[in-house]
Amino acid sequence: MAALSAPRRAATGWSRLAQSNPAAGVVDTLLRGIGQVMFQNNPLTGLLFLAGIFVNSAKFGGSALLGLAASTLAAYVLGADRALIRAGLFGFNGVLVGIALAFFLEFDLLLAVYIVLGAAVSTVVMMALINLLSPWDMPALTAPFVLTTWLLVAAVYQFSNVRPGELIVPLPLDPQASIQTELRELATAAAGLSAGNLVHALFRGIGEVMFQDNLWTGVIFLVAILVNSRISAAFAVLGSAAGLLTALAVGADGIAVFHGLYGFNAVLTAIALGGLFFVLTWRSAVYALVAAVFTTLAFAGIAVLLSPVGLPALTAPFVLVTWLFLLPKRGFRALEPVPVADVTTAERIRAAHPGKGGSPRAAPEHRG
Amino acid sequence: MAALSAPRRAATGWSRLAQSNPAAGVVDTLLRGIGQVMFQNNPLTGLLFLAGIFVNSAKFGGSALLGLAASTLAAYVLGADRALIRAGLFGFNGVLVGIALAFFLEFDLLLAVYIVLGAAVSTVVMMALINLLSPWDMPALTAPFVLTTWLLVAAVYQFSNVRPGELIVPLPLDPQASIQTELRELATAAAGLSAGNLVHALFRGIGEVMFQDNLWTGVIFLVAILVNSRISAAFAVLGSAAGLLTALAVGADGIAVFHGLYGFNAVLTAIALGGLFFVLTWRSAVYALVAAVFTTLAFAGIAVLLSPVGLPALTAPFVLVTWLFLLPKRGFRALEPVPVADVTTAERIRAAHPGKGGSPRAAPEHRG
Amino acid sequence: MAALSAPRRAATGWSRLAQSNPAAGVVDTLLRGIGQVMFQNNPLTGLLFLAGIFVNSAKFGGSALLGLAASTLAAYVLGADRALIRAGLFGFNGVLVGIALAFFLEFDLLLAVYIVLGAAVSTVVMMALINLLSPWDMPALTAPFVLTTWLLVAAVYQFSNVRPGELIVPLPLDPQASIQTELRELATAAAGLSAGNLVHALFRGIGEVMFQDNLWTGVIFLVAILVNSRISAAFAVLGSAAGLLTALAVGADGIAVFHGLYGFNAVLTAIALGGLFFVLTWRSAVYALVAAVFTTLAFAGIAVLLSPVGLPALTAPFVLVTWLFLLPKRGFRALEPVPVADVTTAERIRAAHPGKGGSPRAAPEHRG
Repeated sequence: MAALSAPRRAATGWSRLAQSNPAAGVVDTLLRGIGQVMFQNNPLTGLLFLAGIFVNSAKFGGSALLGLAASTLAAYVLGADRALIRAGLFGFNGVLVGIALAFFLEFDLLLAVYIVLGAAVSTVVMMALINLLSPWDMPALTAPFVLTTWLLVAAVYQFSNVRPGELIVPLPLDPQASIQTELRELATAAAGLSAGNLVHALFRGIGEVMFQDNLWTGVIFLVAILVNSRISAAFAVLGSAAGLLTALAVGADGIAVFHGLYGFNAVLTAIALGGLFFVLTWRSAVYALVAAVFTTLAFAGIAVLLSPVGLPALTAPFVLVTWLFLLPKRGFRALEPVPVADVTTAERIRAAHPGKGGSPRAAPEHRG
Repeated sequence: MAALSAPRRAATGWSRLAQSNPAAGVVDTLLRGIGQVMFQNNPLTGLLFLAGIFVNSAKFGGSALLGLAASTLAAYVLGADRALIRAGLFGFNGVLVGIALAFFLEFDLLLAVYIVLGAAVSTVVMMALINLLSPWDMPALTAPFVLTTWLLVAAVYQFSNVRPGELIVPLPLDPQASIQTELRELATAAAGLSAGNLVHALFRGIGEVMFQDNLWTGVIFLVAILVNSRISAAFAVLGSAAGLLTALAVGADGIAVFHGLYGFNAVLTAIALGGLFFVLTWRSAVYALVAAVFTTLAFAGIAVLLSPVGLPALTAPFVLVTWLFLLPKRGFRALEPVPVADVTTAERIRAAHPGKGGSPRAAPEHRG
Repeated sequence: MAALSAPRRAATGWSRLAQSNPAAGVVDTLLRGIGQVMFQNNPLTGLLFLAGIFVNSAKFGGSALLGLAASTLAAYVLGADRALIRAGLFGFNGVLVGIALAFFLEFDLLLAVYIVLGAAVSTVVMMALINLLSPWDMPALTAPFVLTTWLLVAAVYQFSNVRPGELIVPLPLDPQASIQTELRELATAAAGLSAGNLVHALFRGIGEVMFQDNLWTGVIFLVAILVNSRISAAFAVLGSAAGLLTALAVGADGIAVFHGLYGFNAVLTAIALGGLFFVLTWRSAVYALVAAVFTTLAFAGIAVLLSPVGLPALTAPFVLVTWLFLLPKRGFRALEPVPVADVTTAERIRAAHPGKGGSPRAAPEHRG
């Protein structure tokens, strides 16, 4: 606990500084934008996420910052709600657009222009979706990133000045093709269900949320979440594990599993439904894990649907499944939905809803 | 008429039993779930549908029951509205998910788990769509089935423990390919516009609503609808005929036509728009048949769009076209839409709306 | 100015005649339907559009008229709002369906039936989208045309009596394929960034809104818009230029650029956002041009997504991007959205909103 309280004290001090000093306020906004990639409205989480990216790749760290700056600046210039900007809601899609375009396209000067335009457009799409989804009080999630990136990546097939990288490969589909299911790294032959390979798959699944195929980045990302919420950190691990185990059960490609590709969408679904958009209870926890399992299957399905055009699934499986599992809202009496404006941390939400999801200790005070 | 009143007396007796006896209530709920595949909230219709499936295939009958049980149980566990559950609204998508997964995937123990998960998720998607569509008072139709099945079937390309069956075949498209238009069975060479071939196409079109490529299943399905509503039965036949004739007119593949593949979506569109979601009048009947014709063309179009990934169109053409033709609602003064909560049988709806769609005999009482 | 006032006097006279004489009213309705393809509710604009089509091709002119008549007649028969019909809102999708089916399919007697059915269905889809989008007060744009045409064109792969033309070509995608970027006509070798080639690309981009790959048609279309609104005419040119320059910057196929294929979607986006759905200000003008640039990239992306099935992008890039850029509405304080019912001409909208977008001359009166 002492390890956690130190960052918390620092956070309080920083929060005061960010309120009074405009430059610190901008830094705070940008860091929260990175933290929001995994629903963590916390500048320290954002800082650690950024560190985790740079540990793996300076190129992706720079692309993330470029996208972050462009999407946040676009929100200021267009006059979006300041409270939403300050919470980092116009940053996380820009971060992902920046990394994704650098990940899938060839490095080039024009790529920087492409990232700036894509990140700025992600802010427009974010506001479009906020308005579109408001009748149901539903969050836009990373849909702006997915939509913008799909269009911009597909487009480069037709361009000679912005070029696709080696990962853009349209594949003819063969349902009868054999799948190699041995859990192993692409580069090595050390295959099998070893503890080491499982640990890699588990943490890389968390790292892959931001395209970082790196064990230590995954560990740093987990610490970053832990700084803000133990429940969200737990569901990040549970989500990655759910993805990993589901993929092993159905016999998915073991190399993809090792590198966390079956985990990152399940991580996001588990965090979102595990105590954030529904109050955490045993029932909602099981519901979140079933959603994480289905997200893993949906990832395979969406990857197949996109295969003829060589596009990546990105976080579309997470967005689709989380929307589908969240839309029932009060239609399922076993679950208590949280209004989007009230989503803070899973801990605070649980404390504020003692009737169903609160801890036994807190409940008597509210009832008495 | 005497043939119809016997089932009706039995229905009344059963209805009382289902209210008082919990076990009978569960059976009643499940049977209505099967009946709702074609909008018939009637346990006898459901029983006959089930009989029709088993006449063709015990495997599909079992899969249908497994999906039905899983989707209905999920609705109970999650706390969905009891009245909706009792009307079978959380059963019909599960039935279709169960049959479809058994139809397109290889038989296997893991397939049973896959069906249970898919059917349970179809209940989540159903409640999601009920909430999503409520601002327009629109029905979810079989969209939960289509969406869930597409994702789960596409996914198995990537799995070695759940395998695609022989019907999952991605096809390279060739717009200049010649089409064989002779109306005939796959296995035989007895081709041509014979009465026998037309009868096969007509009834198999009704059977194919639940993937049953069988003349007698189609006949039993028609009797099952007739037990509940003569108007719906008539539109089932009219829809199948509209699909059949449209397909012959444009020169579609005659083998597909013989086996009812151009009929089943048109059957559903015709039943839905023929007196259920619009009050039956001459105008709405013509509107429903135009929609059935367009459904047939949309079936061909959606099949082509899905061809590169080898996925079946399922009932997506019906869902899309029925939504498009129903969404205008009061925007077209020639049609009188029925609130979704008031949809019972076409006969009762017509009797309740004498001003436009009622029989001439009933009208004076209301005007006088 | 004298050249402009003559048509205006004629317009006033015609307007009176159209009110009093039923036959003239029908002609007025039909001509406005053609004008609405580019948001111009003006019969003279419609007449000039029609002339521009016939200058290029009598076949497409005839197809446009057939689609126009079928979609407008369907709206009358179904009892759509008379004011909407009179404004041509049930005509423009029919015009585009008619031309597109004649453009992509082989000429045939059955094609006429296909056009009549497709255009009539576009009216149903139009009313469906009007209702669907009404909670956000969003326009349907040309989505009914795109959706109906995609289904009907894809379907003909499966038909032997309605056949695809030579432009329906599914292409295997190769991200590493080299792109020829020389700006030139398909038939000639006179390549390069010459003034002549740029002028062709600029005007053909306007002509291609209605599939007319013809310099003079583009010029006539521009005059047609100018007759109704100088601002819309300016944004048509700016949109085509934005598309052209963006395509040149990213290195798109120079033959496609020459023939205006990178221009027509940007033209529509620029007209829509340039003073019609947002009050014209410097900020909204820049916003509209950024949207036009992104539309151009989205065109390339959507074309790639549709490439495996050989379908054209049509105006889907315009519809998608305009929806995304319009949906933020009041979420961006830098922009002032115009209620859909108040959309007339950019000039009148600007005059009615002096606070933000009005001319400096008008502003003092309101402030004083």
